[in-house]
Amino acid sequence: MVRRARSGQVGVVDLARELGVSTATVSRALNDSRAVRPELAERIRAHAHERGYVPNRLARALSASVSRAFVGFVVPYVDTPAYSAVAAECARLLSAGGTQMILTITENDPERELRQLRELTASRVAGLVISPSTHMLPESRELLASIPVVELHRASGITAPGVFSDDERVLDEAVGHLAGLGHRAIAYLGTPEALSNGAARLQGVRHAMGAAGLDPDAMAVHLAEPTPGNGRRGVDALLDARPAPTALLVVGGALSIGTAQRVRERGLRLPDDLSLVVYGDPVWFALSDPPLTTIRVSYSEHARRAAEMLTDLLGEDPDARPAPGPHLVVPELRVAGSTGPPRHG
Amino acid sequence: MVRRARSGQVGVVDLARELGVSTATVSRALNDSRAVRPELAERIRAHAHERGYVPNRLARALSASVSRAFVGFVVPYVDTPAYSAVAAECARLLSAGGTQMILTITENDPERELRQLRELTASRVAGLVISPSTHMLPESRELLASIPVVELHRASGITAPGVFSDDERVLDEAVGHLAGLGHRAIAYLGTPEALSNGAARLQGVRHAMGAAGLDPDAMAVHLAEPTPGNGRRGVDALLDARPAPTALLVVGGALSIGTAQRVRERGLRLPDDLSLVVYGDPVWFALSDPPLTTIRVSYSEHARRAAEMLTDLLGEDPDARPAPGPHLVVPELRVAGSTGPPRHG
Repeated sequence: MVRRARSGQVGVVDLARELGVSTATVSRALNDSRAVRPELAERIRAHAHERGYVPNRLARALSASVSRAFVGFVVPYVDTPAYSAVAAECARLLSAGGTQMILTITENDPERELRQLRELTASRVAGLVISPSTHMLPESRELLASIPVVELHRASGITAPGVFSDDERVLDEAVGHLAGLGHRAIAYLGTPEALSNGAARLQGVRHAMGAAGLDPDAMAVHLAEPTPGNGRRGVDALLDARPAPTALLVVGGALSIGTAQRVRERGLRLPDDLSLVVYGDPVWFALSDPPLTTIRVSYSEHARRAAEMLTDLLGEDPDARPAPGPHLVVPELRVAGSTGPPRHG
Repeated sequence: MVRRARSGQVGVVDLARELGVSTATVSRALNDSRAVRPELAERIRAHAHERGYVPNRLARALSASVSRAFVGFVVPYVDTPAYSAVAAECARLLSAGGTQMILTITENDPERELRQLRELTASRVAGLVISPSTHMLPESRELLASIPVVELHRASGITAPGVFSDDERVLDEAVGHLAGLGHRAIAYLGTPEALSNGAARLQGVRHAMGAAGLDPDAMAVHLAEPTPGNGRRGVDALLDARPAPTALLVVGGALSIGTAQRVRERGLRLPDDLSLVVYGDPVWFALSDPPLTTIRVSYSEHARRAAEMLTDLLGEDPDARPAPGPHLVVPELRVAGSTGPPRHG
């Protein structure tokens, strides 16, 4: 049976004792500091999650200020970890303070998004976490101005705090890794420029190409809405072009899932036929054959930040409210067996 | 960009043309008939999903009867495909008819479940799909009697139609497959007997052991709430026992995810050190090293049935309403590289 602790029962001291590490190490790992080995940090975070650990600050704020409120969580998709894992962890953290989360799925349809926002704001939700659709309607932006909002993954141009991935530095690392292996023909599969994250990623990867001494304008680029099906089609579009790339950099969680499937279906051996870098945090990237070199995004960290920021927005202390604009979570490059030197120079 | 069709724009004829197969084949595949090769059926279903195909009957009923209503979707978890994939597909099908889905996550906590059911029934939801918590409260059962309800994955003892997996025959196949390879020491990792699916699966696997000429009472058994963490602990409990099993049968999607991780961490080579059968439908079972022998559950079929049944319950035609009790979806055994003969007899 699940061992589940009530809010406040499990503290950093308990986690440290159970894992045989110091409380300082636990604290650093839970704050995603770079001072802890990634494997150990992940083990600590996984254990904290299983034991139902809730950060003190979050538990206190939640129980003090927004007891039993309902909040909305509006996402374009829910069948990939960028949304399902964040939704699950956000719901867990919020509910520890008595706040229930209502999730709606827009399927990235702006009209459906507007209907859902109308329903949610007309009902009793105290606030919202939203990952906006690619082409949000002006009416939706107006509705969002009337309620405390935290943006997630994507910015819609409204005045609100948001939790986003800071992909710029890790893209430098990823491109540098591929260039260091000898790759010159690097293809890029990413999200569309109409998405805030798509524009930032394309700019970042172009900058990284230049920094690695490669010509950004010679890079093959395919941009598509983040779904596994588009990942599959992107692989075909990029690998069937001539000259064929020797390395593929995928920056998007759902695109990465379709990519991994399609690369396997095409019978490509990694890294001999193609070097592959994917993006996200599914458990199976490490279980694949070979394990996949990954830009690893901590979705639990995204969830924790979003839950804390929404709680602070709803709280009574104006000084605790997060500033509008991006609050960034830094992903990290994990090199594994899917990247290697190109077969011929 | 996503090619998304509006409800009604994509029909069986379009799908057949685009895939170069007959309309009869498309229809059979979409109805999950055994008459179509599994790979082809999956390709057809994936294409139908990508093209936004909605079954005629569902689209008609939805637009006629419950236009723009809100329905609830209450689940214990959302971070594994049994819930995230079903939620996403159900939301897609319902919204094609103008019905929006509100998802809440109980974390399998009966009190949280009751609070959520109170909120949902007090608000404007027209009906509910629910995957009940393991120990649902009597007050929750009373609330569920006041509203059209479809159960999913688990039965709570209320009078309502439910969509469940029919695991009995496939368990016979799976145990027969392992016994045919020469395994005698088969361990079983499954969901608790307090869950309707846990009780049915344990009974099924015990029956299958007997049918294969093995002693059900000699089988090592570990039952736990379906979470990845419990899958990891179950692997340790079963593999550290003596005599050690030569084969492990896991019947639960979330348990299977933790199992695959833990088996890899323990450095076990499949199938030489252990034969492994897992359960569910994650894309990565086929991408693992080696690919995993799987009891494959069609979550898209579960979603379609649940959406249709809820729609029929909400419709104006009393003759179309589904009967209370189980409506079963049959999973199938897919043999892959993770099962083989035991190392020594």
